[in-house]
Amino acid sequence: MPVLVGFLQRGDVLAIVVKFDDKRGGEPSPSLDALHGLVSDDLARVNALILKEMDSPVALIPQLAGHIIAAGGKRLRPMLLLGAAKLCGYAGDRHIGLAGAVEFIHTATLLHDDVVDESDLRRGRSTANAVWGNQPSVLVGDFLFSRSFQVMVRDGSLKVLEILSNAAAVIAEGEVMQLTTANDTSTSEAAYLEVITAKTATLFAAATRLGAVVADRPKVEDEALEAFGLNLGIAFQLTDDVMDYAADAETMGKDTGDDFREGKVTLPVVLAYRRGDAEQQAFWRRTLEELDQNDNDLPRAIQLLEGHGALKDTLDRARHYTQLARDSLDIFPAGPTKDALLDVVAFCAARTH
Amino acid sequence: MPVLVGFLQRGDVLAIVVKFDDKRGGEPSPSLDALHGLVSDDLARVNALILKEMDSPVALIPQLAGHIIAAGGKRLRPMLLLGAAKLCGYAGDRHIGLAGAVEFIHTATLLHDDVVDESDLRRGRSTANAVWGNQPSVLVGDFLFSRSFQVMVRDGSLKVLEILSNAAAVIAEGEVMQLTTANDTSTSEAAYLEVITAKTATLFAAATRLGAVVADRPKVEDEALEAFGLNLGIAFQLTDDVMDYAADAETMGKDTGDDFREGKVTLPVVLAYRRGDAEQQAFWRRTLEELDQNDNDLPRAIQLLEGHGALKDTLDRARHYTQLARDSLDIFPAGPTKDALLDVVAFCAARTH
Repeated sequence: MPVLVGFLQRGDVLAIVVKFDDKRGGEPSPSLDALHGLVSDDLARVNALILKEMDSPVALIPQLAGHIIAAGGKRLRPMLLLGAAKLCGYAGDRHIGLAGAVEFIHTATLLHDDVVDESDLRRGRSTANAVWGNQPSVLVGDFLFSRSFQVMVRDGSLKVLEILSNAAAVIAEGEVMQLTTANDTSTSEAAYLEVITAKTATLFAAATRLGAVVADRPKVEDEALEAFGLNLGIAFQLTDDVMDYAADAETMGKDTGDDFREGKVTLPVVLAYRRGDAEQQAFWRRTLEELDQNDNDLPRAIQLLEGHGALKDTLDRARHYTQLARDSLDIFPAGPTKDALLDVVAFCAARTH
Repeated sequence: MPVLVGFLQRGDVLAIVVKFDDKRGGEPSPSLDALHGLVSDDLARVNALILKEMDSPVALIPQLAGHIIAAGGKRLRPMLLLGAAKLCGYAGDRHIGLAGAVEFIHTATLLHDDVVDESDLRRGRSTANAVWGNQPSVLVGDFLFSRSFQVMVRDGSLKVLEILSNAAAVIAEGEVMQLTTANDTSTSEAAYLEVITAKTATLFAAATRLGAVVADRPKVEDEALEAFGLNLGIAFQLTDDVMDYAADAETMGKDTGDDFREGKVTLPVVLAYRRGDAEQQAFWRRTLEELDQNDNDLPRAIQLLEGHGALKDTLDRARHYTQLARDSLDIFPAGPTKDALLDVVAFCAARTH
């Protein structure tokens, strides 16, 4: 298995995408498998488009973009778009470009997130900013974002451009909002939900909605798929928040305690803080607001979260949204594509197991 | 005169834009005055649109955006778009939104530039990253960039979206390219020109070209105005490079030596490096590549640049491009708008005096 260290040549980027596809085949994540099987031909075309569109005579762009695009991403958003288009019986080609555009927006966001969070690791690999520094991460993020709009313009639909430019603005707004809540232990549950709806769920919603839009389906299906993506995205993020305090780093590719170390106030913390006594609240303020942490603090945090049922209750909240996501598909006829999308819901809710 | 320190309230942002307009009226920059006079009503509408579109329920967004948008900008790109539209006899409203979109792209680029350059000052004022930190600068830049696309989508023309999304991608590519030449004293003149064409001149060219596009003028006028903006932009940047070693900080709003302190290899340095002996080349490498600088180094740098005629020759190069810009307007009939645009060329070439 090729190991990626430092600068890549173009050939390596190609090799890594092959590796990604290999891994998909060899070590499937069970719950995404049905959808992956249904859209695998389309997804191969999306991957080819991504490789082509991230190219540039400025070699650092494909090097850095290849690093993050190859970094173990599940291509969840493109797969959801492809699946939604399939559910709507779409038979054209537009979903390929749009799935690529959505992945580019997502990738640009990740690059800028890692700079903002000063993260060194993402999914167990060095972040682009850790390898190349903040400067190219910011600028290559800008490039991928611009490139996503070029791909959308080529698609030629103002409606699509409206959906994705609105999504991009809401995502950025959510990211700024998150800055103001990031180290604030008194963040309310409502404020936190607003942040993750904007920064995570909005792009899920745009991706699934575009499946109906390219197929030119009635408004009711458009709205149903938008609701599907939105609720799935919220559930995905809440589960991610729990994972960060519970996950096995080996299997999840995410290190337990990343959010804690960065002082992120996620829903489990919001709940445990409010349920805690003065001494416990002082603990959260010291560790997450002042970022004054020692080796005993993460175990203590997990103990407090479990003691107050904050992880379990966050998963209950997530389940509420997965139920909304499931129900939003009711209007679509039964069949393998609908089953596969319901499997994705199960996957997103079950990632802690 | 209100002084801006730290966080702004919405009302202050409004006040500052008024201050900007006051300043325009009270202390005119002679050479931009004719164009400003011709498009002042339109420019007031652009300023109102900018204020409206940079608003957000997330208060940090208008605070930070207001800081940079109010920071002494000449609104040169919007004015060029408005002037080009006027030259083409355009009588509609579309140029207002597009001028705002162009200014948002420019502002987003400035925010990210200042993060990348770790700049503390821009035009004599604290940069947004110096006041609020890098994180909101990156994210508010993303917001303004997304918002610019929302404004363009509302305009409703795929041709406009194509021009500006292409420009945005080329700008980002140029910014990444610049990273790889930034501290490299052996950068060639051709490579440097490629960088500034991408990162500066492309947006000028898009702005002026859009004047012809909204007016639905023939291809020859479209191309003439694109050439006008492109060559003007190159001349503008080359003059800016000279200013950085020669300007009076009080009148120019830019501190002499910023580029030097940041190790930027601009055309004057490219020329002086190639013309220098081994000892001088070692000086440039120490100061610009290793960023090992002392108080005597900037005066020494200026002495070397002047000794080798590098500042004068850079201005000669700039004059070449201003001539191309002037000539590109030949196809348009004489009149006050054409004269005003020619004044802008003179202003851009004469900023060192």
